[in-house]
Order: sequence, then C-alpha cells, then structure tokens
Amino acid sequence: MGLRHSRIIGGMASTLHVTVPDAGWVDRLADLDDIDLTVWDFASPQPERYVDIAVRPYTVAAAGLEVLDPARIGLVQSQALGFDGVEETLPAGISYANAVGVHEESTAELAVALLLASQREIDRYAREAGQWNRRFTASLIDRRIMLLGHGGIGIEVEKRLDGFGAVLVRVAGHRREDERGTVHGSDELSDLLPTVDVVVLAVPLTEATTGLVDDDFLAALPDGAIVVNVSRGKVVDTDAVVRQSGRIRLAADVTDPEPLPPEHALWSTPGVLISPHVGGMSSAMQPRIDAVVRRQVARLLEGKEPSDVVVPRR
Amino acid sequence: MGLRHSRIIGGMASTLHVTVPDAGWVDRLADLDDIDLTVWDFASPQPERYVDIAVRPYTVAAAGLEVLDPARIGLVQSQALGFDGVEETLPAGISYANAVGVHEESTAELAVALLLASQREIDRYAREAGQWNRRFTASLIDRRIMLLGHGGIGIEVEKRLDGFGAVLVRVAGHRREDERGTVHGSDELSDLLPTVDVVVLAVPLTEATTGLVDDDFLAALPDGAIVVNVSRGKVVDTDAVVRQSGRIRLAADVTDPEPLPPEHALWSTPGVLISPHVGGMSSAMQPRIDAVVRRQVARLLEGKEPSDVVVPRR
Repeated sequence: MGLRHSRIIGGMASTLHVTVPDAGWVDRLADLDDIDLTVWDFASPQPERYVDIAVRPYTVAAAGLEVLDPARIGLVQSQALGFDGVEETLPAGISYANAVGVHEESTAELAVALLLASQREIDRYAREAGQWNRRFTASLIDRRIMLLGHGGIGIEVEKRLDGFGAVLVRVAGHRREDERGTVHGSDELSDLLPTVDVVVLAVPLTEATTGLVDDDFLAALPDGAIVVNVSRGKVVDTDAVVRQSGRIRLAADVTDPEPLPPEHALWSTPGVLISPHVGGMSSAMQPRIDAVVRRQVARLLEGKEPSDVVVPRR
Repeated sequence: MGLRHSRIIGGMASTLHVTVPDAGWVDRLADLDDIDLTVWDFASPQPERYVDIAVRPYTVAAAGLEVLDPARIGLVQSQALGFDGVEETLPAGISYANAVGVHEESTAELAVALLLASQREIDRYAREAGQWNRRFTASLIDRRIMLLGHGGIGIEVEKRLDGFGAVLVRVAGHRREDERGTVHGSDELSDLLPTVDVVVLAVPLTEATTGLVDDDFLAALPDGAIVVNVSRGKVVDTDAVVRQSGRIRLAADVTDPEPLPPEHALWSTPGVLISPHVGGMSSAMQPRIDAVVRRQVARLLEGKEPSDVVVPRR
C-alpha cells in the first residue's frame, strides 16, 4: 500500500481535512492543531473538498459505502470493530480502518453482565418485580466456561471472568500455548462442548463461524448450559436455539435477524435474554474513539500510513 | 469456653448425633463413619436424644431459637453467615456457629451481577423484551467503585471486580495497608463518597451500620451513582432511596422490610433493581455447607472445639 492519504506529497502535510459525524466531535477535538474539522454524517452529500479522514457514524443508519467518491476520500475511519461486508462495497481507492481498542472492553463487560444475569436469573427478578420468589439458581463458581474466540474481546472477557472461581476453557482457531496455559484449537470443539456449562462466543463472522452454533453444537452441550453471544448474530442459528428451548439458555447482544422483529419467537423463548446490540454503546466508548481519531490524525500529520486499516485501498 | 460438646468426657467421642434439616443431607453425608444422622427441621419437636450438632434449616422459616432445650443440644450449626439477633434469643448452654466460607463467593457474585445488570441496564432489556431500543449506558470501565466492608464478602467482590477496568476504593472500619494498597477507614467516608460512581455494601449489620445509607450518604454521591446492597436491608434507609429516585440507583439483594411487600414503593422506584435475598442461594452452596458440617464433625470426633462459633454457650 503506497502513500496517498491526503495531499502528503513528499513530506509532512500542513492541514488535514477530517470530517466527523456530529457537532459534539468538533468540540471534543477542538484542541487539535493542523486539522480542519467539518461535520459530515455520510447521509448528506459527500463534501466537495478532499477528506483525509472521514469518521463514519456509529449507530445512525449511514448511506452505503458504495456511493462514496474515492477521488475525494482517503480513509474511512469506522467507529466499529466488525467490518463484515465492507470489502464488498468499498470503492477502490479508499482505505477503511476499524476501531481497535474502542469496544473490546465494553463488549466483554456486557458479555459478563449477560452471563451473570442469565445464570443468577436477574432478568427474571426484573420481570417479576413485586414478587419475593426465592429460588436456588446456578452460579459460575466451580463451573467450566468456554471462551470461543481469543481475540480482542475474548481476552477482555477472560480478564473479567478471572476472579469468578470458574475454570476457563479457551478455544481459538489453532491450538497454542500462552503464559496461562493451553488455548485449544477449534478441531477440539466437539470433544470440549460436552464438558462446559457456558460458551461465550467472541469470534468474528467468517465463513467458518456462520451458523457455527447449530443444532449439533447445542446438542453437544449439557442440559442447562448457557450460550452468550457478543460476536455477530449469524454465528448462532436462531431457529436451533428456539428448538432447544428449555434445555439451553441464550444470552445474546446480537441476533439474526437484527434488529429482531417484535413478533420473533426468540423474544419469548424461555431462558433467552436479549440486549439490542449495545456491547460497545457505553460510557467507555467516547474517550476511546476520540483517542483513535487523534492517533490517526497524528500519524497522517507525521506522513505515516493510518493504523488498523482492515480494507486497504485497491 | 470449656469442653462440653457431646459426650466427650476426657477423650475421643465414639459416635456423634448430628441432625440435618432434610433427607437430602442424609444421603450426602452417608459416607461419614462415627455419626448418627437424623432428620430434624427445627419445626417439629426437638429430639429426645442429645444432639451434638444440629444443622439449622436455611430458607424454611424455623421456630425461634428461644424454644430450644439446652440440655439436649451442644451446637447449632447455621447455614447462614449473618447472625444478627442470635445472641438475644439463644438459650444459655448452646453454642452457635455461622457458615463461614459458604456464601461469600456466591453473594459477591450476585453483587457483581446486580451491579453490571444495573449499570448496563440488563433489567430494562428484560422488561422491554420485544423492543429493540438501543441506548448508551454507563459502564464500570474508568469508574471508581467503593467497596464498603472488607470482610469475607468484600474481599470476594474485590477479586471479581479486579478485571473490569475500574478503580476500587476500599473502605473498612479502620484504615490499614495491605499488599494491594490502602484500605480506607470509615472516618474518611464523607470525603470519599463524592468521588465514587458505585458503592458496594458488604458490611455486617451492627449499630454503626444500621441506617448508614441515609439521606446524607446518598446526597454525598454524584448524580447517577449506584448503591449495591448485599449486606443487610437495614443498612440502607429504604425511604431515603425512594426520595432520591431518579438521581441515585439501587441494586439490592436485601431490603428493609424483608420480604418486601408487593405494594412497597421501592419495587416501582425508577433505577431500583431487587433480588429476593438470594445471594447465597446458588449451586455453590451445597458443596460448601456440606464441607462445613464435615469439618465440624471431624473436629468434635477429635475432641476439639467446633470452629466459627459466633455465639459461645454461656
């Protein structure tokens, strides 16, 4: 990938043009020298002037990337970690960076929140407010928890589950050792599934992980097991979960389809707890995404390539 | 406290008489030699025969301790950690042991489950099932969490919160240092409260802690702060929480009164999440309380005093 971000030709750029999705950003980045900040939400027409870094909106439905004019944008900086579908729609000539380090901790926190809520039945207490129904529940203590996926989110889940008195069974693509022991390979999955009480899904959506949690996967888990999904909805076969109702529980921040329609059977399936894809939507996000953009600005001003480019310009 | 448990007179006891509250216990302790096990639920008449260890029921409402005949019981083994009120009602001549190591982990787990559910609004998602309402929430990341009480439960909460990216502010009766830094004294409380986003209450109920969380305490906390109570209901002034509705959140496993009546205002106070005193009621309990009783049996068979006697016989 050659240098071509901005008007950097043979040296340091003088002023970068950075677009941000709303006015709040302008205030937060007001202290930055050497950049022109303008607001562009990806829904209104693309700025006429060349944009060095275009920060993409996070939650607002944005126009498709395919309409962007690559003659007038160097880098699209996403605020999300996942980038499935981007390679297929991004016009040649534009680079696309994902938001590394912004959502992993917050998403891992939500994974643990969903797991604990499901295991200790906090969702039931919330729905039964007004009733004093004492019942024994399961706990994480003495249980075996599989972390499926050992990337940024998986590692943050591991950190958070460390003190809960559970045995963590870590699984990634290929078997390896680290300072904490063995990370199992995905070829060991069928042997390991019957031995765990919980599976936390923290894998990217790929061909191999699409529909990974299907009838066979769920059938291999013991009765009462919980599947926690904070990866992508399509990793889990929704219909299979509905079929396993009463035997397997699901605590998911992502669903297939998404948004999950009000009439969908999953909402009322016993043992299913759903949050509306809010893993990264916490107070932890803003300082971290601000830092990402500041880092990219600094790199481009220094004449370096942007970091975390997951789809390089072609 | 002199030796007087059982018929231990000048040596090893031959056979101990242990009563357990239900038949499940008889199966679980069936491998123990040198004990006679009988079922007694504290509601039916006290056994005629001398009881060396009487395991008290955990959740079933038991007859008051004041009716026990001390001529026929050596030790009441509680399955609970708290023992407020026992000293006032236990007849002279009987010892009372609490259940150390049985509930601390499970209760700490519930404290973190309640805190995470409240902070990430899992209770709202549970109540709004069918709706896909994405909103930003607070997170524990970068926040300051006060652990008020640094005994068995407080230490287990600390272990569990360690990986969540928060700053832990530990407070106990008297200031001290340990390998992790400073444990603040309760005289620093008023200075510290305005600096924290969360307070986890893990103190015993004493004269000093009764009504500790009152209007002044809550007023000292910043807007949006969460109070988590897994200690005793009377540590928090319920009416003060209702008065601070909308400004301060409460996630509580214990309430005052308890059980909380269906019509009580606390159930419908915004930002209040209640579980029905189930901190210890998890799958972690049974193996741990079994181990406690086995340890007491072993001690008495060896001619030792029972451990964890919190109200010695007078």
